[in-house]
Amino acid sequence: MSLFPPSLENLIEKFASLPGVGTKSAQRLAFHVLALPDGEAEAFAEAILDARRSVHRCAICQNLTDEDICPICESPRREKKIVCVVADPKGVLAIERAREYNGVFHVLHGVISPMNRVGPDDLRIRELVERVAEGGIEEVIMATNPDTEGETTARYISRLLAPFGVKITRLAYGIPVGSSLEFADDATLTRALEGRLEY
Amino acid sequence: MSLFPPSLENLIEKFASLPGVGTKSAQRLAFHVLALPDGEAEAFAEAILDARRSVHRCAICQNLTDEDICPICESPRREKKIVCVVADPKGVLAIERAREYNGVFHVLHGVISPMNRVGPDDLRIRELVERVAEGGIEEVIMATNPDTEGETTARYISRLLAPFGVKITRLAYGIPVGSSLEFADDATLTRALEGRLEY
Repeated sequence: MSLFPPSLENLIEKFASLPGVGTKSAQRLAFHVLALPDGEAEAFAEAILDARRSVHRCAICQNLTDEDICPICESPRREKKIVCVVADPKGVLAIERAREYNGVFHVLHGVISPMNRVGPDDLRIRELVERVAEGGIEEVIMATNPDTEGETTARYISRLLAPFGVKITRLAYGIPVGSSLEFADDATLTRALEGRLEY
Repeated sequence: MSLFPPSLENLIEKFASLPGVGTKSAQRLAFHVLALPDGEAEAFAEAILDARRSVHRCAICQNLTDEDICPICESPRREKKIVCVVADPKGVLAIERAREYNGVFHVLHGVISPMNRVGPDDLRIRELVERVAEGGIEEVIMATNPDTEGETTARYISRLLAPFGVKITRLAYGIPVGSSLEFADDATLTRALEGRLEY
């Protein structure tokens, strides 16, 4: 005999299926939803359906949008000659937060990962190659994460793009600003030394 | 300019409104829901609506159920003379897990907490008093959490029930089984000493 009614068990299960949510958290979330004021739980359900219905990928950069073309690709103030390649929409968010970049993006929606059975064809790499092949792009900045999969993906793409003669760069590695040498790991220090600049 | 489309921002906000879910987690959860296979996101939304529609409180013990009377109150094998008072449905779950208790429950749906503006009238205390007043109950076991609010609530209820002449008990405090004296805090050790039993 289950101790919670089936519909509650079902809701707990749904929450528990989310990444990083364990059984105890799922119970807490389900109880929270049950105790919400009238209308709010319905608004939650509607938010899920609405996001699923209206969010899709920008026809140009593949970032998530509810328009055909996302606001960044649409903006006349963005430099279309420079494309920053990120693994996911969170990468766009991170770079936009720095308020320094004025080019456009290309979102891969993942990284090449043989462990997770993600190959190049599962990513939006073909769309990037097509964008570059169409011309008008001068520089492609690889901004995947500085881990093995991110680097593999960046190298794979840079080899694919080489024939088009565009400039291919990657984000600099080094000591984080405001951090201390003492806390930097060996790999970061090695990269920081390799990438040293002249005053 | 928001970086995610409004419907995605809305979904992230909904997730972030859940207890224990920060902005980063809410983003991760929203992206997860967007990437779910067809039908699964809809099933999630439906689970919320369905639980809200069908889950309510047992007319007798106030535990969550989708029947009029919950399976425990309905069961002919449960001893109706003994009522265990818990703060919430998770308390029922915890005690049922021990497979030792054969009485029924009463779920308060909270504890008295002046800090959180929860008074006795916000809990299902009146329903408990009515159950006891109706007769047929011999023992009420207070099983609220062993913290200040849990104890305050238990004491308040025990004073309310005193006139009815039922036996009022509470769960024993002491060293957790399998634990070590070394790790027990002072309050627990004090309670364990006070509650010492003769061999």
